[in-house]
Amino acid sequence: MQLCRTVAQVRALRPRFERLGFVPTMGSLHDGHLGLIRRAKATCGAVAVSVFVNPIQFAPGEDLERYPRDLERDLELAQGAGADFVFAPEPSELYPAGFSSRVDVGLTHGAENAARPGHFSGVATVVAKLFNIVQPTVAVFGQKDAEQCAVIRRLAADLDLPVKIDIAPTAREPDGLAMSSRNSYLSPVERAAAAAVSRALGAAQARFHSGERDPDVLRIAVAAVLGAEPLAQTQYVAFADPDSLAPLSTPARRMLLSLAVRFGRTRLIDNVLLDAGGI
Amino acid sequence: MQLCRTVAQVRALRPRFERLGFVPTMGSLHDGHLGLIRRAKATCGAVAVSVFVNPIQFAPGEDLERYPRDLERDLELAQGAGADFVFAPEPSELYPAGFSSRVDVGLTHGAENAARPGHFSGVATVVAKLFNIVQPTVAVFGQKDAEQCAVIRRLAADLDLPVKIDIAPTAREPDGLAMSSRNSYLSPVERAAAAAVSRALGAAQARFHSGERDPDVLRIAVAAVLGAEPLAQTQYVAFADPDSLAPLSTPARRMLLSLAVRFGRTRLIDNVLLDAGGI
Repeated sequence: MQLCRTVAQVRALRPRFERLGFVPTMGSLHDGHLGLIRRAKATCGAVAVSVFVNPIQFAPGEDLERYPRDLERDLELAQGAGADFVFAPEPSELYPAGFSSRVDVGLTHGAENAARPGHFSGVATVVAKLFNIVQPTVAVFGQKDAEQCAVIRRLAADLDLPVKIDIAPTAREPDGLAMSSRNSYLSPVERAAAAAVSRALGAAQARFHSGERDPDVLRIAVAAVLGAEPLAQTQYVAFADPDSLAPLSTPARRMLLSLAVRFGRTRLIDNVLLDAGGI
Repeated sequence: MQLCRTVAQVRALRPRFERLGFVPTMGSLHDGHLGLIRRAKATCGAVAVSVFVNPIQFAPGEDLERYPRDLERDLELAQGAGADFVFAPEPSELYPAGFSSRVDVGLTHGAENAARPGHFSGVATVVAKLFNIVQPTVAVFGQKDAEQCAVIRRLAADLDLPVKIDIAPTAREPDGLAMSSRNSYLSPVERAAAAAVSRALGAAQARFHSGERDPDVLRIAVAAVLGAEPLAQTQYVAFADPDSLAPLSTPARRMLLSLAVRFGRTRLIDNVLLDAGGI
């Protein structure tokens, strides 16, 4: 496995692969990432992984500085999962002096977009750059970041990026907690409490599968579970169209239910797609 | 020569060419465009031309509706200049329902950007799309649209687009008028008067080459020529850094001098790079 620190190194390496899968990450790899890497490898026969904590997707006061970084460990894990190369640039490599562009996909309705203004413009900008550098055949993202998935699909479609976007199911711990690099921030007590997030989603999902289609009723089911967990500080419980991210306030057969919940200083997000199938 | 009306047709055709030059146009081709096409062909051995009047780079009240369109003639001229294929999509092909993205390169200082708010975001967005669709080796633009050239260079650098940007000198009529599709709007009397634009640039250039470096003094030389032409309504005379487009108000050895001047309903732009060389 090769390590590339510069755009030029990736451009020199790229022609060696006909089909190339790609998994963009902020490093601090966990089993969720490794599943994405294996999935991309299986699809394309070769896979590149980027490790880059993208400063322009963090707002002032967010966790840019304390975001966990361990490149040595990431390289070992990526290699173990089958990565052919890792692209781990310094911020100055992607944002040299004079850099001034932004890509904005305009999906402004989402709850996560409202909670983190500017975040998805930072995501879309770096992903457009990474796609143009790595030139992947297929790029794999995790459903855990549902709003990000909608943004990336919109980005690829709107800018005619020559890449297929593949969304993989959320990887979860045995107690249901969605895998996330930010889980490492949790104290043992917070970690135990955090299982309430997926339990809350599961409660709504069970009601949905029993025929309940009303977001207001499902919201109560979510609130009941989160309300029973004293450490859970709910930031939002959102029902939205999975593609446009427009909020839904009336019964629907297809809804993205997404949550943001704080445990102490740690903010976790999770979601489930509620889909009754058919038309 | 082939005509492609859809993105899928271009994608199917693209692998036939190893190196491919590209000239994006809004059609209504003139000798300036044909020079760019020949230049791209000479560089790459094959050349694609796009013909697309891009609605998102026109503001309400601008000339989107009356912009001249004649695809039959454009196809003949492009073929004569050596084009291997022309991509002429309908607006709905590039902007289908749900399209919501924008690329903004953030060069907000330019005089043309101030005169046409949102214009360059529309340009950057469509050019990013066209580059991703056509996947050219080299893309050729004319220096006549100097601020656009700076925007495209910034776009390609900032988004790591795998394409070389080649800027060709402005093509001019015998009396110095920069070639432009919008020249066809001019009445015979306006057409004769419009030569004052390049004469004004020439007057400043002569003073610069005589050693004058002060924008305020050069501005007077420009104003003297334009002021002597009763039909010329000057919109701006701007001195700027050629890369950042930041306005210059003190003497400099390298300046982009750009003009926007109205003749009746027709707005013309032109520019000259004043470069004393050295450091």
